[in-house]
Amino acid sequence: MLALSLGDPSGIGPEVAARAWERRAREGVPPFVAVGSSASLAAISDVPVTVVNTPEQALACFDDALPLIIVDGDAACVPGSPDLDGARVALASLELAVGLAIGGAVEGVVTGPVSKAQLHAVGFRHPGQTEYVAERCGIAPTGAAMMLAAPVLRVVPITTHIALNEVAATLTSSLIMSRVRTTVRGLLKYWGIAEPYLALAALNPHAGEGGAMGREEIDIFEPALDALRAEGVSIDGPVPADAVFTPRRRALYDAILCPTHDQALIPFKALHVDEGVNITLGLSIVRTSADHGTAFDIAGLDQADAGATVAALRLAASAAACRRRFAS
Amino acid sequence: MLALSLGDPSGIGPEVAARAWERRAREGVPPFVAVGSSASLAAISDVPVTVVNTPEQALACFDDALPLIIVDGDAACVPGSPDLDGARVALASLELAVGLAIGGAVEGVVTGPVSKAQLHAVGFRHPGQTEYVAERCGIAPTGAAMMLAAPVLRVVPITTHIALNEVAATLTSSLIMSRVRTTVRGLLKYWGIAEPYLALAALNPHAGEGGAMGREEIDIFEPALDALRAEGVSIDGPVPADAVFTPRRRALYDAILCPTHDQALIPFKALHVDEGVNITLGLSIVRTSADHGTAFDIAGLDQADAGATVAALRLAASAAACRRRFAS
Repeated sequence: MLALSLGDPSGIGPEVAARAWERRAREGVPPFVAVGSSASLAAISDVPVTVVNTPEQALACFDDALPLIIVDGDAACVPGSPDLDGARVALASLELAVGLAIGGAVEGVVTGPVSKAQLHAVGFRHPGQTEYVAERCGIAPTGAAMMLAAPVLRVVPITTHIALNEVAATLTSSLIMSRVRTTVRGLLKYWGIAEPYLALAALNPHAGEGGAMGREEIDIFEPALDALRAEGVSIDGPVPADAVFTPRRRALYDAILCPTHDQALIPFKALHVDEGVNITLGLSIVRTSADHGTAFDIAGLDQADAGATVAALRLAASAAACRRRFAS
Repeated sequence: MLALSLGDPSGIGPEVAARAWERRAREGVPPFVAVGSSASLAAISDVPVTVVNTPEQALACFDDALPLIIVDGDAACVPGSPDLDGARVALASLELAVGLAIGGAVEGVVTGPVSKAQLHAVGFRHPGQTEYVAERCGIAPTGAAMMLAAPVLRVVPITTHIALNEVAATLTSSLIMSRVRTTVRGLLKYWGIAEPYLALAALNPHAGEGGAMGREEIDIFEPALDALRAEGVSIDGPVPADAVFTPRRRALYDAILCPTHDQALIPFKALHVDEGVNITLGLSIVRTSADHGTAFDIAGLDQADAGATVAALRLAASAAACRRRFAS
């Protein structure tokens, strides 16, 4: 049993949750309990909803109705028109769903799309849900890593939400090594991959061409790679980032780490936008999310694609099952 | 009639030229004259070669044999083992092929893959073939723009071969405007697209999120976009770079401009590596090249794919034909 926080009640989170539940039998969607507001589900869908208090009750009714744990503060909502009451509901949903996972009442949490701007307006103190979940798990932000995963491609950005101009100064050998180690552990824990083959993309065009276009590959990347290989990690790099994502090359690797946000997310979304799952590595709980935002512009219009939510639920379930076998 | 310089004689340039000629009838490859060394062709292929002196002679024999203009300095060569004699042949081939185009003896030039390191060792003074061709045409380097073109995607990097750490300082509103204007003119001249719809990708993740992760979008991109729109250019942006390359989004645009080399080349090569053509916009001649390097590691092994060379020849021919109608 998984917990799925519905995210902002005015976004597409409630809609894709309802659509994902409808696909449960045909596509083998693992059982989940929605956590959020009843008004947001009623506003966009006529799927049968059963209000429950516990994951056990949710499991018992999942075949016949979408089980929902209603958070306090449940308020009226208009799809496409976010407001602060809705942001409070989104925050409460996140807190409860993550709490259920940390407490072990569910085997993993799938977080729905939230508006960071709305959340910050109601007192959310974290850059994003990933940092929030890391803190709740007692993990330093650098110990958690964001991975985007599709069936045939996994990418990990080494830096995420910082200005491009700050990337070079942020990259250190120890940050690279930390991200690689977290990735290696995550591939074992969540996929059972015991000896992964990784690639580290370069920062500069053509991997700097021997220092002619930037020295980070020589001064920062190579020492990190040497140390990692001495630990037994199989890792290729620094590979020019435009070479590592060609079809033949990307098929070689279990995961590709990239220095910048865009280097990782551009090819991932170009190739796998409708099946992309964001999974946080390095946590004490399984946490995934669909790789899309609130999409307020299409909320309530029955246009949202639930494919990524189904994929996020499936990956959370398979990661949880794998973790039971491989957790260190 | 096009000129095709064979590039480094020890790379895959001669091989893909021979393979492209073999596909002439079946795939309608436009007629071309190879410019380079006879030894390099003899070393890798038994296609019939006819040595010619002029493009007219080449056209007369193209159906029956690969026409070749031999440059002075023709030297023995070993596929996969580059040397300085070969680099001199590559340079002479480039000079002659470009000269034929500038003089109007051919309607366009397709440049084969060279090793920059080898060329620089024999006195080549330019960062790459693109800058070389621009100078031969009397164009300032900022007036020429590199575009990667496939049938359904065209990308233009605004900065190219510089360290990532120098990108933010290099980007100015006027550089962005120059690249956009060159792109608009190129789309008309080479494809007949009179009212293109363009996208400008952002520099920072999430387009900077209102300045929270970098101010370039606000301080540099928006003023450039305002000025371009005032000139009548239809351009969307700044669009987060990971959003602009999703399938639905990228299909909207005639070309996508990106601040960095990797932002443009990662998705292009992930999607179109075997059909990618590099075309230089803003020149007085038509110049294309296959979007790959010398690949010394597979030269002579009959593994090289001539698809990109065929695509580069086709685009040069169609661009030349279009230019005759639309040249301003």
